Parts: sequence; structure tokens; C-alpha cells
Amino acid sequence: MLVVFGDEALVRAALEFETALAQAQAAEGLISGPDAEAIAAACGSLQIDITALAKEAAHGGTLAIPLVQQIRGRVGTSAEKAVHLGATSQDLADTALVLQIKAAGTLLEDTLQSMTASLAALAENHASTPMLGRTLLQGALPITFGLKAANWLLAIDEARARFAEEQRRALVVQFGGATGSLAGLDGKALAVADRLSSALGLGCPPMPWHSRRNAIAGLASALAIVTGATGKIARDISLLAQTEVAEAFEPKTAGRGGSSSMAHKRNPTGCQIALSAALRTPGLAATIYSALPQEHERGLGGWQAEAPVLAELYELTQGAVTAMAAVIPGLKINPDKMLENLKAAGVGLDIGESSTLVRRAIAHCRTRTCL
Amino acid sequence: MLVVFGDEALVRAALEFETALAQAQAAEGLISGPDAEAIAAACGSLQIDITALAKEAAHGGTLAIPLVQQIRGRVGTSAEKAVHLGATSQDLADTALVLQIKAAGTLLEDTLQSMTASLAALAENHASTPMLGRTLLQGALPITFGLKAANWLLAIDEARARFAEEQRRALVVQFGGATGSLAGLDGKALAVADRLSSALGLGCPPMPWHSRRNAIAGLASALAIVTGATGKIARDISLLAQTEVAEAFEPKTAGRGGSSSMAHKRNPTGCQIALSAALRTPGLAATIYSALPQEHERGLGGWQAEAPVLAELYELTQGAVTAMAAVIPGLKINPDKMLENLKAAGVGLDIGESSTLVRRAIAHCRTRTCL
Amino acid sequence: MLVVFGDEALVRAALEFETALAQAQAAEGLISGPDAEAIAAACGSLQIDITALAKEAAHGGTLAIPLVQQIRGRVGTSAEKAVHLGATSQDLADTALVLQIKAAGTLLEDTLQSMTASLAALAENHASTPMLGRTLLQGALPITFGLKAANWLLAIDEARARFAEEQRRALVVQFGGATGSLAGLDGKALAVADRLSSALGLGCPPMPWHSRRNAIAGLASALAIVTGATGKIARDISLLAQTEVAEAFEPKTAGRGGSSSMAHKRNPTGCQIALSAALRTPGLAATIYSALPQEHERGLGGWQAEAPVLAELYELTQGAVTAMAAVIPGLKINPDKMLENLKAAGVGLDIGESSTLVRRAIAHCRTRTCL
Amino acid sequence: MLVVFGDEALVRAALEFETALAQAQAAEGLISGPDAEAIAAACGSLQIDITALAKEAAHGGTLAIPLVQQIRGRVGTSAEKAVHLGATSQDLADTALVLQIKAAGTLLEDTLQSMTASLAALAENHASTPMLGRTLLQGALPITFGLKAANWLLAIDEARARFAEEQRRALVVQFGGATGSLAGLDGKALAVADRLSSALGLGCPPMPWHSRRNAIAGLASALAIVTGATGKIARDISLLAQTEVAEAFEPKTAGRGGSSSMAHKRNPTGCQIALSAALRTPGLAATIYSALPQEHERGLGGWQAEAPVLAELYELTQGAVTAMAAVIPGLKINPDKMLENLKAAGVGLDIGESSTLVRRAIAHCRTRTCL
Repeated sequence: MLVVFGDEALVRAALEFETALAQAQAAEGLISGPDAEAIAAACGSLQIDITALAKEAAHGGTLAIPLVQQIRGRVGTSAEKAVHLGATSQDLADTALVLQIKAAGTLLEDTLQSMTASLAALAENHASTPMLGRTLLQGALPITFGLKAANWLLAIDEARARFAEEQRRALVVQFGGATGSLAGLDGKALAVADRLSSALGLGCPPMPWHSRRNAIAGLASALAIVTGATGKIARDISLLAQTEVAEAFEPKTAGRGGSSSMAHKRNPTGCQIALSAALRTPGLAATIYSALPQEHERGLGGWQAEAPVLAELYELTQGAVTAMAAVIPGLKINPDKMLENLKAAGVGLDIGESSTLVRRAIAHCRTRTCL
Repeated sequence: MLVVFGDEALVRAALEFETALAQAQAAEGLISGPDAEAIAAACGSLQIDITALAKEAAHGGTLAIPLVQQIRGRVGTSAEKAVHLGATSQDLADTALVLQIKAAGTLLEDTLQSMTASLAALAENHASTPMLGRTLLQGALPITFGLKAANWLLAIDEARARFAEEQRRALVVQFGGATGSLAGLDGKALAVADRLSSALGLGCPPMPWHSRRNAIAGLASALAIVTGATGKIARDISLLAQTEVAEAFEPKTAGRGGSSSMAHKRNPTGCQIALSAALRTPGLAATIYSALPQEHERGLGGWQAEAPVLAELYELTQGAVTAMAAVIPGLKINPDKMLENLKAAGVGLDIGESSTLVRRAIAHCRTRTCL
Repeated sequence: MLVVFGDEALVRAALEFETALAQAQAAEGLISGPDAEAIAAACGSLQIDITALAKEAAHGGTLAIPLVQQIRGRVGTSAEKAVHLGATSQDLADTALVLQIKAAGTLLEDTLQSMTASLAALAENHASTPMLGRTLLQGALPITFGLKAANWLLAIDEARARFAEEQRRALVVQFGGATGSLAGLDGKALAVADRLSSALGLGCPPMPWHSRRNAIAGLASALAIVTGATGKIARDISLLAQTEVAEAFEPKTAGRGGSSSMAHKRNPTGCQIALSAALRTPGLAATIYSALPQEHERGLGGWQAEAPVLAELYELTQGAVTAMAAVIPGLKINPDKMLENLKAAGVGLDIGESSTLVRRAIAHCRTRTCL
Repeated sequence: MLVVFGDEALVRAALEFETALAQAQAAEGLISGPDAEAIAAACGSLQIDITALAKEAAHGGTLAIPLVQQIRGRVGTSAEKAVHLGATSQDLADTALVLQIKAAGTLLEDTLQSMTASLAALAENHASTPMLGRTLLQGALPITFGLKAANWLLAIDEARARFAEEQRRALVVQFGGATGSLAGLDGKALAVADRLSSALGLGCPPMPWHSRRNAIAGLASALAIVTGATGKIARDISLLAQTEVAEAFEPKTAGRGGSSSMAHKRNPTGCQIALSAALRTPGLAATIYSALPQEHERGLGGWQAEAPVLAELYELTQGAVTAMAAVIPGLKINPDKMLENLKAAGVGLDIGESSTLVRRAIAHCRTRTCL
């Protein structure tokens, strides 16, 4: 995920945008074929000093200007004006971000799928393993461990569905020119936008979305919910792993869970990563919402805040999900201790409809998604 | 909206839950018909000192205990045990919250629909009214005022669609008993849950969701996005209404917009309400996300934080949308000043594809929703 | 605290402002003595329909206009112009808020003082009571319960000191007129400001602070930290009270801690209140920070968002501190279970410097504050 | 600031901690002098593959374990046990963080000082330059530009004072061992702590603060307020720079403020950076508050979330302050346009006490800080 949102991937996506734009404009006769080829060739072969470019972009407040300058410097005088024609900095920045979002979504969905499958197996295997249910951090009445796992499963599955939906909504091109009016393209701007979208494998929105950032906010929401649902699993496992409870433990992983002062300890490091992420994502999502009331056609401060925050949301979410996707299949369950704690609580052994509910939950997920 | 989330509506919803529960249990033979009738009668006629009850609930950390006690005190000894049978405090609290959410959603959707219609009309009427487009708070190239309004329209329409979807997801009953295992109901718990859901006009989830709070988080997200999109309109109008810009003004409303020190001023009070709400909703949504990793079967501190925060989100969102739904149809547009500012900027008069984009935006909304 | 920030207290504070302003202006010869007396009499005797006034204020976006109108209606034609002279809505709103803050601070400091004393006693009494120290939710090495309590004490004491400092900073009058230039008062505005401050028992800032909101943000920070430190105590107690740990329990309180489905349970309701508050305050503090970049001389949306959010911060903080101030002195400690859990962990009994550290912590607090 | 919080600086600070710890322990006779020298030599000469170490630390959830292992591998068998004696991972992590905080604070305070001086000069120079005061984004009554600048100055000066205070509070060593009991050091632990603090130029707290994170939260608050106050300046300048207002502009800076689509534009890029930072810091501060209720002696998820978030807060704040510290002294003021806009508003020319207030503000800052 760090690679997906790294400077190099960003520049590559930006070059992909300029290439596709030139080709779309050539197809519509706005620039010449040879110019489009020169641009594509330049974008394909450009040797970029990423660090220097990132510095210039940070200083200037936009990546587009120094990057377009480099492309223009490469294509020769005749094609110079054909580069970035009718586009604005934010067209490049947003479309590049969307291409990164696309790649990021694929990574995350894969990890979520793997976690979902592990959770379904866990719920199924322990559908009838009795344990003490706990409410308000107090022993309450019996449940089964499968019921607990089925609850995790449903939460992840629901969060995954929402994320997939928001991901789908967000995968649209940005192309509007300076003020989103698509001026200066001789009546062919909409045709260019369509070609550009197709070439990049993205949708084409009814209008540019320079200052209409719902889709970004939708993604931030969905990521915060995925991380929160993952943090819930981590909360439960870390509580079950407490010395006095001792009902479930993270798997041993080389180089993880040790203590620099106590050799006997096995720390729930996967849970730590997920809980830490679940603490950090809410504030980041709030930032994205705060940025929504952007000024006029393209805002000042708001949209520029989004990309790094969204990248962090993907990175934290992916980190949390990866950590727990590793923990869940290797979880060490101790059914004897579960039974012992349950009996000690003196609340009987009636698990109610736990097993039935587990089956319902698994069936529910099967119908909705490719469990 | 204050009424919908008021103490009285909450108690009424809680009584509705207890009535429907008793009737569902009578239908399944878990309690007697006369007991169910006695409960329904008690819930229907209970004279409750709302202030005293709210105090007891706050002190005890739960509404269910004092309320159920009052019902039991009313139904007579024989029916006493039939009240709240197999249910837990959170079953009552969550279902009551969902019933409030349902009512709140209807209110908000109506106001959004009215705002959407006004925005579409505004966009259409000004599809070709030229004005200066502004980016990074600087004059840029021409657009039309209709293009600006169409951008607002699309944002509200998208936000509304997301809200409707989350609203739909959230409208499910909560019924799980102490630990969500549906114990103690003689194998008939799922049938009771189905009947209870139908009676209340809610869906029945695959499993209780005591500590799986995605739906609440989804609503919080959707509300924050609606408010943010509304705040965007307020941001733009308040900038257009600046003394030196003078292109659009809020309508005059009796008792609004005056100044206690300057009689000449007309303050953009509708915009103020929306911008203020857009500042407050992000932190509230973040709170809901922070509460997601709830402990075990029913958490401590997390779920108890949700209801007041969600109520505040609905109230602020409704306040913002209502304020702008009043502003938009009465907006005073000054096309002459728009043209004057545009000419003064010296960037020509080419509006590009603005009018076409307006038509596309309106058509897009028409296909998606009942504009 | 609800009373302090209630509509009635707000109106009373606003009337106090107008009275003191008139008297200060009379003392400087800006208005006549009889006019000042008429205003003071009107403000003292005004029968206000609070609900109706709140509605007008909400609709108009400011309390000052309808309230000043009512005072003017009461003082008679000659004194009419002397009311609210040279002041602006925000002068009234901010000064009234500061007066509420002053009252709120006294309440909270008293409760904090009581909690601090209980914590010091707890730490002292259990300076040498051995228990298992726990890190990353795993049993680690021995500590004493006094060490845990001393850590709570230091956190509360530090948080209290910061709050007292921010409270002190914030207690200044707001008086600047329409744009903060103090115009229209014949060169006597600064003298009026000084008299006004003295009369209200507030400081006089070097300049009006209409759009310089650091002090509000400082208070929000301090409140969030008090609540967080209180939530830390609640987190620990609720973990110690877990069925399997059973080392400490909240005191029994009539009407609190019961369960509507399980008679055997004793829920940590005080902790629940504090943890819930600790979840809600961060987002509210963030809102106050988000509002800092207010526009020009008096902003739009930002400052109007502050008062309700700050009130909520005080209410939640006071609720959390009150709940834990009640829990701490009545805490049921089980030293036998502590020892049993410690021995079961097999990590020896060496408490290190625990007792010494407890003494240091108590001494540290004694030197800083009136423990 | 990126360097201060970079992996390399972190590792260097961690090695500084281990060196000072060994020397303190040798001075107290807990380890031998040659062992301490061996450790100091190893820490001084260690060639570390930072990328590999960061990866191991991320995987293991702690930097201490792989780093201590590398030091141990270097010092030879006899000194092995003397490394990291009586310390825990968090002792190293927190003290290293505090050392980074110290360096970061110096950087930020220098930049703030420079900005404060520029603001004071600006206020003084324009103490009597009349302009239109604006409230609720509407033209109101006259002020002077100096009054606006003096308001900025006071806000920055107050924010700087709070930051300096929080910085001072936070500069304390962390040394407590596994559970903060300072066990295993033969009664000399407190003496070691004192020596360690002195050697590192830090204070020594009354007790370890592993799960008492007020100081971190205090820093986060102070940084959010500095950034908010800086964002306020950016908000105002960007509004004054609007095409129709044209009263003040950012200085031209090579490579900044250009547009990829409109050669005529000069974008307020410094303001953009500051506004973007002011949008992002509130959510980060909220995260730090959310992490306060950490579990027991050392928490899970909470403290691990702090370091990256705090680093981001320093980086964003420094970015914002640096950007505006560059903008302010080069600001292009247009007093003629100010007068023109003021006259056009038709609200007279009475600047009230503006000039006096400017002098008061500057004097106030002079007495408090080394302006």
C-alpha cells in the first residue's frame, strides 16, 4: 500500500493520464497523431528524479506544473502545446489519485476476502463451542465462540460491501479544465472525456467533480468502518488473551509479540496494530469531511488536504486488515479454558440459539458475496 | 428533529417495542394472550414523568430498567414476568433508536427532495448565465451560474442517494437477549424476532448487532457527507454575497440576517447555520467510528455514546439542509454584476461546455431519483 | 452543569453584560445616569419567555437582537438608544459565554479537587498492596495497587493544573463593537472596557478577540485531557472488575449497575459514563480547532459553532469526573484476589520501587496544588 | 522537521538513550565501567540498515527488540546483559520521542519567533491604514489593516506561549522498566533515573508516565492551536487576495503560485499550505485524545498510535508556520484599493480606537515574549 501511494506510483499515474489525454485528443482531431505519439513516448521513457520533483511539487503546491514542464521539455517544440491541452492541474492530480485508489482497492479487497474466509471457517468450526458471553465487561450468559466469530464475520462482510460500493463510485476520471467548463476544446471536450475514461478503465462522471468531493468522503467513511470492524475483532481477541481469561491467543510469529524486558510474555501485536489503526482512522475521516465545503470551482486548502489523508487511511486500513487476516487463521483457541471460565461464572450452560445464528450469519454472507 | 430525538419520542418508541414484543411472544405461545393485552394496554396508557425517568435512566446508565419497572408495576402480578421477556436493555434501546432513525430519515429525505428540486430549477434557469469561475479563491475562466448550481445539485443528489442506502440498511430490529444468543425462548426466539420486526416495520438482521455497529457508522458517514455538501453551497453563496463580489444574496427573511450594531447589513444567516453544522458533523462522525471496537457481546462506553451523537448528527444535518432549502429558491441572483465581474477579470467570455454540462447533470439526477 | 449552560443562565449572563455595560458607560459620561439605572432596572426585572427567545435567536442566528429589543422595549424612549451602545452581538454572546465558563470552571474544579483527594488516599492506603502489573493487556511484573492509583492521581492533577491555567486565560471580557475597532464611543471605549471587565470580575484583553479564539481552543484542549485522564481510570477499573480478574469493583449505588436481563450482574456504570465521555470529547475538541481559521473581523459559521460544543465539553467532562469521583472513594478492592492473580502469573513478588514512587507522586501533587 | 522525525533521527535518539542509561548505571555501580564504555562505543559506531530495522520494528510492533539485539550483538558476551538493563521497550521509545520533540520544538519556536516579528512590524506599519472591516463575510465598519495584523500577532503570540509551556512540560525522561515499578535495580533505580535525565538534558518525572499521556496530549493541543491561528492568517489573506477585493497578495516566489492552465493567475500557495494544515491538525489532535484511556501499566494500541500522529502534527504545523512566515514579510499591500473598497461600502471612515489597540497589542507581546 505504501508503494501504491508512493511518489513513484503517483508520477506513473500522472504520466498515464497525460498519455491517455493526448491519445484521446488525437482521436478527436484536437492534436495531431504524431504529437500524441511523441507525448506517449516521452511519458513512457521519461527519467524522473522523483525526490527533486516531489520537492518542486511541494514548494509550488502542485505536481502538474513541474511534471508537465518536464514532458514539454522532452517532446520537442512542435508537440509542446499539445501536452496537457485543455487540462488543469487538478485534472491530473485527481485522476492520478483515482488510479491509485483503484490499485489500493484491489489490494484491500483481496485481504478482506481472505479474512472473511478465515472468519467463516472459525465461526463454523466453533458454532457450538460454549463460552461465557460478556457484556459491559462483565460475565453474563453463555454463548458459543462461533457466535462471537460470526458477529465479526458479519461486520467485516458488511464493511466490505460498503467499501466495494464506494470504491465503484469513486473510480471516475477527472477532466474539466481550469474551471470545469471544458472550454477550449472545440466542442469535442465531452468526447475526449469519454475516450480518456475508457482508456484509463474509469467511469466518466456527468460533470467534473473538482469541488464536489462526496466520493472521496465516501471512501474515507468506508475505510474508517472497515478499520473499526477490524479493531473490534482485535479488541475481543486482546481481551480473551488476558492472562486471567486465557481463552484465545494470537499465533506465534517469528519476530513479533516478544518483550524487551520480559521473556515470558507473548504480546498481541497483531491486535495492537489493528487497535492503533482503529484509533487513527476516525480523525482522518473527519478531516476529509471537514474539507467538503470547498470554495467555488476549485478550492483552496481543502482538496489539497485530501490525497495524503486518503493515502494514510488506505495504509492504516490495509495494515489493520493484514494484521488480523494473519491472526485469525492461526488463532489458538482454548475451549477447555472457555468452559472453565463459563462454569466458574455459574450462569448455566444454555447457549440458546447460538449455533443457529452462526449458520444464518454464514448463509447471509454467502448470498451476498463470494465467501 | 428535536422532537424525533426527544425524550418523549424515545419513551414512546420503547413502549412500542415492549408492546410488539409481548404480542409477538403471545403469537408464538411464549406468554398468554391476556398478558400481552395487559402489557399493550399498560404501554398505551402509561402516564410517565419523562423528566424523572430521564434522570433515573442517566443515573442508572440505562433506560430499560426503570421503564420496564414502571410497566411491570402497571400490568398486575400475573403479567409481570411476561414483560420484556428474553430481552435485554440494549434490545429496547437500539430498537427504539432505530424507530427514531426511521422517523428522522423521513424528515430529512423530504427536505433534501425539496432542496434538490430547487437546485435543479436554479441550474436550469441559469444554464447560460455567464460568471467568473474561481479557483484557489482567484478569478480564473468563465463558467455559468447554472454550472455552479448543477455541481451543487449533483453533490446533494449523490449525498442523498448514499443516505437513503444507509438509512435502508439501518432499519432493522434489535433482539438478542442478554448476550445475543436469544436464549430462554424455547426455540421460538427467531420466530419472535421475525414477528417483532414485521410489527415494527423493520427488517430482521441475520444476528443481533449489539456490538456490530456498522449501520450506525454508515448513517453517521452519510449524514456528515450530506452536511458537507450542503456546507459547500453555503460556502459558495457566502463568498458570492461578499460586498465586493455582490453576485448573489440570501433572500430577506423576517427576523434573520440583521445586525445588532449595523442596520445596513444583511448577514447570510442561512449559510452561517449550514457552515456551522458542517464544522460540527465531522467530529461527531469520528466519535461514532471511534466507538466501533466495542468489547465482546455488548460493550462498555462505546454503544452508550452513540445515541446522543447520532441524534446530534441528524439535528445538525436537518438544520443545515432546512436552512439552505429555504435560501436556494429565494436566492437573489445579480446577473449584471456577474457579467461585470467577469469582464473586469479580462478572461474572455467563453463558457465552454457549461450549458451542456448543466443538462447532463440534471438528466443524470432525473434517472437516479425522483427529482 | 446543564443549568450553567442552560438558556436561562445564558440570558441572565447576557442581561448582566448589558447592565454592566450601561453602568460603565454612565461612569464615563457616555450615557446618563438615569438611563443606566433604567437599563439596570429593566435587565433586573425583565420577564422573559425563554423558549420563545431561544427560538427567535436560533432563527435569527443571534441572541443579541431579540434580547436587546426586549430591553429597549422596557426602558422607555429616552433610554432606548443607551442600550447596547457601541456593542455588537458577539460582544454580548462572548461575554455571556465567558461568564458561563467561569461558573462551569468552579463546578469542575471542585469535583476535580474531591477526586484528587480520594485518589491520594487510595494511593497512600495501597502503596504496598501487591498486584500483577499488566502491559499490552498481558500479565507482566508485580506492582502495587497504590502505584496504579498514584499514576491516576498524577494524571488528574496534571490535567487539573492545565485546566486551571486555561480557565484563567479565558476569563476576559469581549467588547469591541461591530468590527473590534471600539468606534463610536468618543475616545472612552478603553476606559469603558476596563470598567466593564472589573464589574463582571473578568480580565480585559489587549484587544477584542472576536476572531482570535485561542482561549476557547485552550479550554477545549484542557477539558478533553481531563476527560481522557478520567477515562483512563475508568478503563483500568472496568478491566479490574472483569469476572475473571475480580480485583476491584465499583461501589453499589442504588438504581445503578443493574441489568434488565441478569439479576446477578453489577455493571460498572460509573466507568461507562466516563468512558463514553472520553470517546465523545476528542471529536468536540477537534471541532473547536477546526473553527479557528475564522474569517476577517468576525467569522461566519466558526464562532457560532463554538458555544454549544464548548457547553457539551463541560457537560461531558463534569459528568465523567462526577461519576468517577463517586466511584473512587467507594471502590471495593480485593487484595486477596490481587495476590492470587499475581501468584498465578508466576512472575515473583518483587514490587521494586512501587511504594517509594507512590510517596513521590503524592508529595509532587502536594507541592503543586492544595491536595 | 521530516529529518527530526525520520527513522534515522529516531534510531540515533534511541542509541543516545541506551548510552546514557549504561553510563548512569555504571555510575551507580549497577554495571561495570568497561561494560558501559563498550555499550557507548557500540551505540556510537553501530552501522544500521535503517530500512531493514524499520521493517523489523513495524513487524514486531516495537523498535527496542531488534535494536537492543543489534547492540548486544556488538558489545561482546560479557557486556550483553548490561545493555538495556531494567528498561522496557517503551522507556526507549518514549525517551527517543521526547528527544525528537525537543529538537522539533526548537525548530518550530524559531520559525514562530520570526513570524511574530514580521507580524509586529506589519501591525505597526499599518496601524493607521484604513480598510473595510468585514463580519460574517459582509462589509461592516472601518478598521485599519494594522488592527487586523495585530489580531494575528496576538493569536500567534498566545499560541506560541502555550506551545512553549507544553513543550517544557513534555521534556522528561521515560524510565520505569516493564511495569513502571523500577524493579531489578537494587534500590538504585531512582538515582539512575536522575542521572539519565541529566545526561539527556531532560527533566525527571515523579513517576514513569507509560500510561499517563497528558504531556503528549498537551503538545498535540498546542500544535493544533498554533496551526489554527496560522490558518486564520491564511484565511484572511486569501480572502483579501480575491480578484474583486485585491487588497493584499502573497509575494511572488519562484516556482510557486503558477497555474498549469492559466498563465495570468497568481495562486495564494502559502495560504493553501497553511489552510490545508489547519484542516488536518484537528483530527490528529483528536486521535491523541482518543488514545488517553490506555490500559493498565502500558496500553495496547493507544501509545503505539501516538508517535506517528505527533510527528505529523509537528510536520504540518512547521509547514504551515514556515509558509506564512515567508508570506507575511513579503505581503503586497494595496492601501489604495483598501480605501477604495472602504469608500464604496459607504460606512464612513471612522477607524475608532484601531491605532491605539495596535499599540496595546504590540506592547502586550513585548512584555510577554522576546518579540
